[in-house]
Amino acid sequence: MSGISGSTSTALLTDRYELTMAAAALADGTADRETVFEVFARRLPEGRRYGVVAGTGRLLDALENFRFSDAELERLAEVVNPTALDWLANYRFRGDIDGYPEGELYFPGSPILTVSGTFADAVLLETLVLSILNHDSAVASAAARMVTAAGGRPIIEMGSRRTHEESAVAAARAAYLAGFTATSNLEAGRRHGIPTAGTAAHAYVLLHDDELAAFRSQVAALGPKTTLLVDTYDIRKGIENAITAAGPELDSIRIDSGDLGVMAQQAREQLDALGATGTRIVLSGDLDEYAIASLRAEPVDSYGVGTSVVTGSGAPTASMVFKLVEVGGRPVAKRSTSKESRGGRKSALRRYKPTGTAVEEVVYPAAEQPPLGPHDRVLPVPLVRGGKRVPDLPTLEQSRERLRAALVSVPWEGLKLSRGEPAIPTTFEGS
Amino acid sequence: MSGISGSTSTALLTDRYELTMAAAALADGTADRETVFEVFARRLPEGRRYGVVAGTGRLLDALENFRFSDAELERLAEVVNPTALDWLANYRFRGDIDGYPEGELYFPGSPILTVSGTFADAVLLETLVLSILNHDSAVASAAARMVTAAGGRPIIEMGSRRTHEESAVAAARAAYLAGFTATSNLEAGRRHGIPTAGTAAHAYVLLHDDELAAFRSQVAALGPKTTLLVDTYDIRKGIENAITAAGPELDSIRIDSGDLGVMAQQAREQLDALGATGTRIVLSGDLDEYAIASLRAEPVDSYGVGTSVVTGSGAPTASMVFKLVEVGGRPVAKRSTSKESRGGRKSALRRYKPTGTAVEEVVYPAAEQPPLGPHDRVLPVPLVRGGKRVPDLPTLEQSRERLRAALVSVPWEGLKLSRGEPAIPTTFEGS
Repeated sequence: MSGISGSTSTALLTDRYELTMAAAALADGTADRETVFEVFARRLPEGRRYGVVAGTGRLLDALENFRFSDAELERLAEVVNPTALDWLANYRFRGDIDGYPEGELYFPGSPILTVSGTFADAVLLETLVLSILNHDSAVASAAARMVTAAGGRPIIEMGSRRTHEESAVAAARAAYLAGFTATSNLEAGRRHGIPTAGTAAHAYVLLHDDELAAFRSQVAALGPKTTLLVDTYDIRKGIENAITAAGPELDSIRIDSGDLGVMAQQAREQLDALGATGTRIVLSGDLDEYAIASLRAEPVDSYGVGTSVVTGSGAPTASMVFKLVEVGGRPVAKRSTSKESRGGRKSALRRYKPTGTAVEEVVYPAAEQPPLGPHDRVLPVPLVRGGKRVPDLPTLEQSRERLRAALVSVPWEGLKLSRGEPAIPTTFEGS
Repeated sequence: MSGISGSTSTALLTDRYELTMAAAALADGTADRETVFEVFARRLPEGRRYGVVAGTGRLLDALENFRFSDAELERLAEVVNPTALDWLANYRFRGDIDGYPEGELYFPGSPILTVSGTFADAVLLETLVLSILNHDSAVASAAARMVTAAGGRPIIEMGSRRTHEESAVAAARAAYLAGFTATSNLEAGRRHGIPTAGTAAHAYVLLHDDELAAFRSQVAALGPKTTLLVDTYDIRKGIENAITAAGPELDSIRIDSGDLGVMAQQAREQLDALGATGTRIVLSGDLDEYAIASLRAEPVDSYGVGTSVVTGSGAPTASMVFKLVEVGGRPVAKRSTSKESRGGRKSALRRYKPTGTAVEEVVYPAAEQPPLGPHDRVLPVPLVRGGKRVPDLPTLEQSRERLRAALVSVPWEGLKLSRGEPAIPTTFEGS
């Protein structure tokens, strides 16, 4: 972790070639050419119908710490020449950044982020920009599908143990952005203000002489408004012990294994018979969006989701790229056999029906905005001007609300979990 | 990043329930019970034939910073009671840790890490231990297959942009452990001493007035012992420009798109015809172990691998779990319908033929070691004693060599990329 290295700079969280390119461009005079770089995804993960932009807030934080102090410069002496080192010592990003706001939907080719500035200023940011957006958007895109599948039932993110310890914090943030209600991760609580949750694991039951003793102890420490994990031994006996220990005012039981649908039904009947009609049922254990959807008819009150959300449910990276599209006001693009790109600075708007349903994403040359219908919206917003963060950017809570509203605007077939085409088509104008 | 939060403590990189369990156990007197927790994987990712233990070194570093300072305690005031806060203020892990050394192979059920100490001491480590081992082992396990597929050709890890910015640093370390030769990630160079590599992207070519100008500039800045990326426009013309700019002493060309096998053959012929017989060919662009294997017959000198290695090539987490197996010297185990575990502290040995080929993994109750044949090896080693790291633990280079040797010991069918059973069977004794 950065913490362990003792440095708070984010400037070495990058690829060596960003530095060698900047140094070579400084040497030949091209470093000062005005450039525009664009972040986009060529495609969505296979069969996905939309992506969710996430990480923008983290990126803007990281950008403020993207400076080369003596600790970084010392390391770079073997990478670039002294002229470049001097330039890096004074580096701070001085350009502009525009982008889709966090929590916005995106589709193939959407210009998710546009970085403009001198070549040397802008190219240095490539790796950090992509690391943050690719990770966080992958998690948020998967998480949004789970939230839809849960149909209003709360979901707790509990996947920290299945991903890198720092990814875990970012994943908790992305899942919360996407509509999860809480996280197990304490650092995500501290760093991002996300509600934290969690009471006990099987180990706590095993530690005690018997299950009833464990439950009595947990209730003594945490009160009856706790969640008792009832599947260490026999679930029926576990529920009986739970109500014996906590009384019918027990907040929740959690079941983490077995045939969860069947278990939920049996548990509900048993709890009701014991008079614990208000005790809620939390299910966890290898849940993903499909498993959550299959539990829709069961008496489940909330879900705990781990591995699948922090690993993007099969798509652990959003595959966004950072491409140079303009130099000195002139469009540029790679032209070899594959991976072709569209040159020129672009913007995008989304067209909506009067009912509020989205119908089309239009990507156009930034200087040639098509007429806006009464319900249409231009998507990118200013994020950084002259190297400084634009004031009053949305909070995490506001971004969460943005996504909630955006998902309401998706045509119904775009919310299906099954594989299919993007929820709305993208039209590229002027290309 | 931790860096941004200003704290170097790793103690909140954990799940809330570890803290509530410790607090409840402190309240009822069970916190001091002597416990043994075991880390293992119930299974390998589908069709994989071995796993690679990675992350142990990072874990031991993180453990040293697993302390609760005022900054952490302030946050925890809403999670646990004052008695627990006082205890946490003085917390440091005082127990023992044994484990498979980093770079060792593992199989389903292998006791990869054993944490022993009081319940409260040990349980707090669960999430951090799993985050680190699950991430790093997933990357190393995928990377080792790529190294095998490359058959001795060097591989550069360049996947930072496809994963969380801190995962990127750990992934570079895990890939290097597995036999990759370098990384694009500068922080991995600084933090772990891994060689870094990289010269220029397509943006550098696009920045210039033409490709030849870009190449001349790069050679002027970095010398002819550089790598020129030749597929921005037409590859044949790109190679011609590369040799014009650098002369036949050019170190390498890189091709990042197109039909790489065909491109490599054509490039080799063209380079040879231009007299650049020593100029090497580097291929990159969505390579994984299967693509690398399919290029074996082509004139490739080295590979650059990104997305697939940092995302574990389809298995982004190693799915290891951390289970309580002993309390006060007595075996304990979850006994519900699924996810059963074997109780009791265990150790393991690997049996080998006189030729050095591994034949069997034997997992046994720690107190009942079976007779060791002349070529057999007990696998776990002491890592931490009384909370302190054992001196003279292997360096990253030594762990890298350990894995290299371990892979030589795998039966030939265990190195196949195709899906199959674990390379050697595991026998559980005394259970």
